[in-house]
Amino acid sequence: MTKPLRLHEDRLFPADPGTRAIARELYGLVRDLPIVSPHGHTDPSWFSGNAPFTNATELLLAPDHYLYRMLYSQGIALDRLGVPDRKGLVSADPREAWRLFASHFHLFRGTPSSLWLSQVFTDIFEIDVRLEAATADLYFDRIGEALKTLAFRPRALFERFKIEAIATTEGPTDTLEHHHSIKKSGWKGRVLTAYRPDPVIDPEHVSFKEELARFGELTGQDVGTWQGYLEAHRVRRAAFAEAGATSTDHGHPSAMTADLSPSVAARLFEKVCSGDFTAHEAELFRAQMLTEMAQMSLEDGLVMQIHPGSFRNHNAWLFKSFGANKGADIPAQTEYVRALKPLLDRFGNEPELSIIVFTLDETSYSRELAPLAGHYPVLKLGPAWWFHDSPEGMRRYREQTTEAAGFYNTVGFNDDTRAFLSIPTRHDVARRIDAGFLARLVAEHRLELDEAAELAVDLAYYFPKRAYRL
Amino acid sequence: MTKPLRLHEDRLFPADPGTRAIARELYGLVRDLPIVSPHGHTDPSWFSGNAPFTNATELLLAPDHYLYRMLYSQGIALDRLGVPDRKGLVSADPREAWRLFASHFHLFRGTPSSLWLSQVFTDIFEIDVRLEAATADLYFDRIGEALKTLAFRPRALFERFKIEAIATTEGPTDTLEHHHSIKKSGWKGRVLTAYRPDPVIDPEHVSFKEELARFGELTGQDVGTWQGYLEAHRVRRAAFAEAGATSTDHGHPSAMTADLSPSVAARLFEKVCSGDFTAHEAELFRAQMLTEMAQMSLEDGLVMQIHPGSFRNHNAWLFKSFGANKGADIPAQTEYVRALKPLLDRFGNEPELSIIVFTLDETSYSRELAPLAGHYPVLKLGPAWWFHDSPEGMRRYREQTTEAAGFYNTVGFNDDTRAFLSIPTRHDVARRIDAGFLARLVAEHRLELDEAAELAVDLAYYFPKRAYRL
Amino acid sequence: MTKPLRLHEDRLFPADPGTRAIARELYGLVRDLPIVSPHGHTDPSWFSGNAPFTNATELLLAPDHYLYRMLYSQGIALDRLGVPDRKGLVSADPREAWRLFASHFHLFRGTPSSLWLSQVFTDIFEIDVRLEAATADLYFDRIGEALKTLAFRPRALFERFKIEAIATTEGPTDTLEHHHSIKKSGWKGRVLTAYRPDPVIDPEHVSFKEELARFGELTGQDVGTWQGYLEAHRVRRAAFAEAGATSTDHGHPSAMTADLSPSVAARLFEKVCSGDFTAHEAELFRAQMLTEMAQMSLEDGLVMQIHPGSFRNHNAWLFKSFGANKGADIPAQTEYVRALKPLLDRFGNEPELSIIVFTLDETSYSRELAPLAGHYPVLKLGPAWWFHDSPEGMRRYREQTTEAAGFYNTVGFNDDTRAFLSIPTRHDVARRIDAGFLARLVAEHRLELDEAAELAVDLAYYFPKRAYRL
Repeated sequence: MTKPLRLHEDRLFPADPGTRAIARELYGLVRDLPIVSPHGHTDPSWFSGNAPFTNATELLLAPDHYLYRMLYSQGIALDRLGVPDRKGLVSADPREAWRLFASHFHLFRGTPSSLWLSQVFTDIFEIDVRLEAATADLYFDRIGEALKTLAFRPRALFERFKIEAIATTEGPTDTLEHHHSIKKSGWKGRVLTAYRPDPVIDPEHVSFKEELARFGELTGQDVGTWQGYLEAHRVRRAAFAEAGATSTDHGHPSAMTADLSPSVAARLFEKVCSGDFTAHEAELFRAQMLTEMAQMSLEDGLVMQIHPGSFRNHNAWLFKSFGANKGADIPAQTEYVRALKPLLDRFGNEPELSIIVFTLDETSYSRELAPLAGHYPVLKLGPAWWFHDSPEGMRRYREQTTEAAGFYNTVGFNDDTRAFLSIPTRHDVARRIDAGFLARLVAEHRLELDEAAELAVDLAYYFPKRAYRL
Repeated sequence: MTKPLRLHEDRLFPADPGTRAIARELYGLVRDLPIVSPHGHTDPSWFSGNAPFTNATELLLAPDHYLYRMLYSQGIALDRLGVPDRKGLVSADPREAWRLFASHFHLFRGTPSSLWLSQVFTDIFEIDVRLEAATADLYFDRIGEALKTLAFRPRALFERFKIEAIATTEGPTDTLEHHHSIKKSGWKGRVLTAYRPDPVIDPEHVSFKEELARFGELTGQDVGTWQGYLEAHRVRRAAFAEAGATSTDHGHPSAMTADLSPSVAARLFEKVCSGDFTAHEAELFRAQMLTEMAQMSLEDGLVMQIHPGSFRNHNAWLFKSFGANKGADIPAQTEYVRALKPLLDRFGNEPELSIIVFTLDETSYSRELAPLAGHYPVLKLGPAWWFHDSPEGMRRYREQTTEAAGFYNTVGFNDDTRAFLSIPTRHDVARRIDAGFLARLVAEHRLELDEAAELAVDLAYYFPKRAYRL
Repeated sequence: MTKPLRLHEDRLFPADPGTRAIARELYGLVRDLPIVSPHGHTDPSWFSGNAPFTNATELLLAPDHYLYRMLYSQGIALDRLGVPDRKGLVSADPREAWRLFASHFHLFRGTPSSLWLSQVFTDIFEIDVRLEAATADLYFDRIGEALKTLAFRPRALFERFKIEAIATTEGPTDTLEHHHSIKKSGWKGRVLTAYRPDPVIDPEHVSFKEELARFGELTGQDVGTWQGYLEAHRVRRAAFAEAGATSTDHGHPSAMTADLSPSVAARLFEKVCSGDFTAHEAELFRAQMLTEMAQMSLEDGLVMQIHPGSFRNHNAWLFKSFGANKGADIPAQTEYVRALKPLLDRFGNEPELSIIVFTLDETSYSRELAPLAGHYPVLKLGPAWWFHDSPEGMRRYREQTTEAAGFYNTVGFNDDTRAFLSIPTRHDVARRIDAGFLARLVAEHRLELDEAAELAVDLAYYFPKRAYRL
């Protein structure tokens, strides 16, 4: 009655046999390379505490917005899936939530979630039947048992996954205690942080005021003044760098940058601190802060990441009931050519500065980002991101960026995930898609096989190491 | 001298032999399924009157804006093609018009019109030579003779096409007499209507005032007041539902929605009724009416369709000379994320409401619509529409929507046509392209064959039935 | 140690063997057709003077912004590459610059530059090892020696390349002396000019004032008045036509057109001449001038080209140091539907007018340009342009324009280049990609082989001749 679950070794390669053979060969060169994960959202406490994960629902379903957004779109209430509400309360029984998920697993056909989970189920939990209503309990039990074993503790998995380095992302007022504790523990796993100061940079952030106050306390700076505020950033950046960070990350609604005079910037800062500001002033302040962050990156060498273009918490009722990051962030049109100009006018030709730009608006690949990255020394293109971190999305990314930006202005793969168990499969998908793209270039005699081989390894391993200064 | 016209049984399948074999297998499952046509523009009088069609030009050329727009773009005057002018006058001799068309048929190479017509010619009229100047008369005569026979009457064709249900589209002041007459006739063909209230919702519609007056007469409501106007909609929606409608349809210039307070809405209604309003007020009124229509759909269960983004009657001279719908509607950039928010803030999480959104702006597929439909319970994605109802357009649709929205937030195919004879081939094209897309997923081991088989049938048959509550 | 450089005869064809065989057959029909190059930027003095080119760096590297923009993006200073600074000074030793380029040639993997150069190296210079640090001197010497021979003089290459006609582009105040001298010389090579009046049409052009003054002198018109200014254009257009021009070219920031009354236009002209104008007034003036140029094209029969959407000289520092056209022009979002309406309202249905529209914003292909060109008699689509003149770019162009515009509303290929030696390979790439696209349509049974054969020849040869009235 159950259906077999088996991953095909040629999955995701182009179907044409000649091209597939080349893809297979290229993939063979990168399949077993260590994982470099320079941007993501795993929880450092997993690696400091090394406590066992609890059960399938809490590990795989409840934290994964890719999964419950799709289930929600088909009418399944979030609380039935074990998703915590705004106060953190969970009302569903984990096994019941898992059954509900299992009986709707067909919804994920054709999506990357289905690919990722299938590989997690087979490779990590060694399950060989497909997930459906009839196998829900088998899955829940098998996963639950595995999680009790030492082999499934976070550090053991980290080593099993051959993670050479992984970056987490922390807010500006994070104490970084888990990172410190990992370091002190003597464990060899390399877990870095990244500086994501949005909560003290975005005047429209729900807890801007509180975060700013805490930012002042933590740094001992007078963050009521523009100079003190900037100094506080310098202090925290140094603390993050000390805890291993090699990058900062900025998740703004748009890519807008500004280059105001110090006195105008100071007045704007006063304005946004007062709480009495317009949406435009908030935007302008964020814009100015990107340029300030670039200036500091030039000083301290942290690579700067700009992740714009998500309309956060689009679903008002859901935000009120369940809070942020619940699958209701929607990409919006994003302009780069005019938006980045003030920053680029000031720092665009600095050989020591490195800015990695991401997009959720695929129309910017060939029109704006590849031409920009193919010219400005400071710019590099981040990989296909979020909704586009998928086989078709990654293919479009290469097809639409390579001709104007080349491969060498890209930075390899980011898994960008909080779904720890999916990290190996996410990197595997990227390696397979890149192998397939390179194979097509070889099959069409646009690239020599030896060049493709070198590039495959660069994309999978050396580019992220180099771009993130790891 | 003439060239053979033969349709290849593998047409539109991917060329790779392995993928093609899978596509052929999947297509075999759906090839002979009945046609469900939930959105279109056939004329209900055809099915009530069942009168014979006249000749090739009046049946196939003069009403098809896909055809004469292309001919016009190459310098052929519309009146020479049998297209009626603004007053409905036709000056061309039908045979001469057909000859002109035939001698320019090469212009359609590579377009969907060429695909559609070739199948109409071979499958319906059993012609086996290609259309060109030399065969124009042969075609005109053969088609003319066929049309005189009973087998080519509208009802006979309807049955031959295996149409399980077809929806036409009527304006708010339509008496629905043809639908009533079909019902009374005892004929079993299922012909539904759909409520398209644009003429009384769009203050910029050329006959808004007259339509509104007639709307009041027909419903017995005081449409000079906001409450009476809303009630008139309720009355007409009930009448349409009574005549079989399961959906409404809204063809606005943009996707903008609004959620004004009743008193503000009432004042805005007064404004637009006065004739003294700005373009912005017209837009805001249409926006508000989408939200009102959603409210009524929640009450009466009619599925709501939003078809935005066409710049109507772009060619000023042509509009003056030949009137509306003459191939001069041009897609424009269309924003959804901000535009739909007011409506979604109010109704986005209603389990009983269903809104199907279409686009003419393909950039919105992966950036806006798939992420929205993959989250909101009320939203589903309409199929590739109008200029994108084509092999490449349908492929891009699946490639750009599936990964974020899945298949299950889509609604199968709409033929959206007034070209009755092309309905079977349009559905056939969609079934072939979907089979090819699914086959690629199978060939790349991203989907199991049994899953693809189930999906092929869903896409061709069950999804439209379910989505349109048929 | 060196690696062989060999071009595969099947390069750029689809990998599927069945499709490839068709592509090869179609390509065989066009491979040796003469080159018609109706839009480009070669220097007419090459063909009038017929002086030898100097060395590899000055011929191939220093003038090619595709090359040095990529090198610059990876941190290589332009002056080290032999690129002249703002004053025209070159500081690098040509051989050293070439070595630097050679040692970074891997950066071009996957880009069209790599394709173009490889074919220039093999076909024109008969070099059979790849370019890299180790072969830099071999290349520099081999190319240098070749350039000294008569066979590598501009006219000899022109004939070897089988160029039937080539258009250069000149500004409104160019004396066209080189074109006159070519004509007088008795040499049979057909070198045309094209009228590109941007410097006297764009009030924001750096030398608008000086150019305008010179425009008056050259034409003997009072260009201080609107009527005199328009008359001066007529005079110059006639002179260009006399020197062989069949087209004009307009490179505006946007596609905006306007149709102001003569008196309003005259006042606007006064305004922009005064130097005291807003950015909007400058835009409006350019917009009005497109319509005026269309009017003149209707009178004198010159085909009009509109090339909008490039944000020129985006890199402020680079512009200050190295001047214009240094690889820092970046595409920007470009709207056509509303922008072109004023011009189309006036001239859209004129059978004698021909306007070829280009875009750097690929999103406009299927959404705006193909629907517009598939309707308006005056409009045709220019080929994939600049950043999109590449294998993937050309494929997307055909995939996204053919279904709504057909092939017959396109105009074949433009090489648009100042890189004279790359002209044969650029046309070859276009012919290969079109052969591959047509082959796919044949393989998918969407087009008959005989239709594809006819189209292949049309696209490569007859369409550009016809569209540019050559």
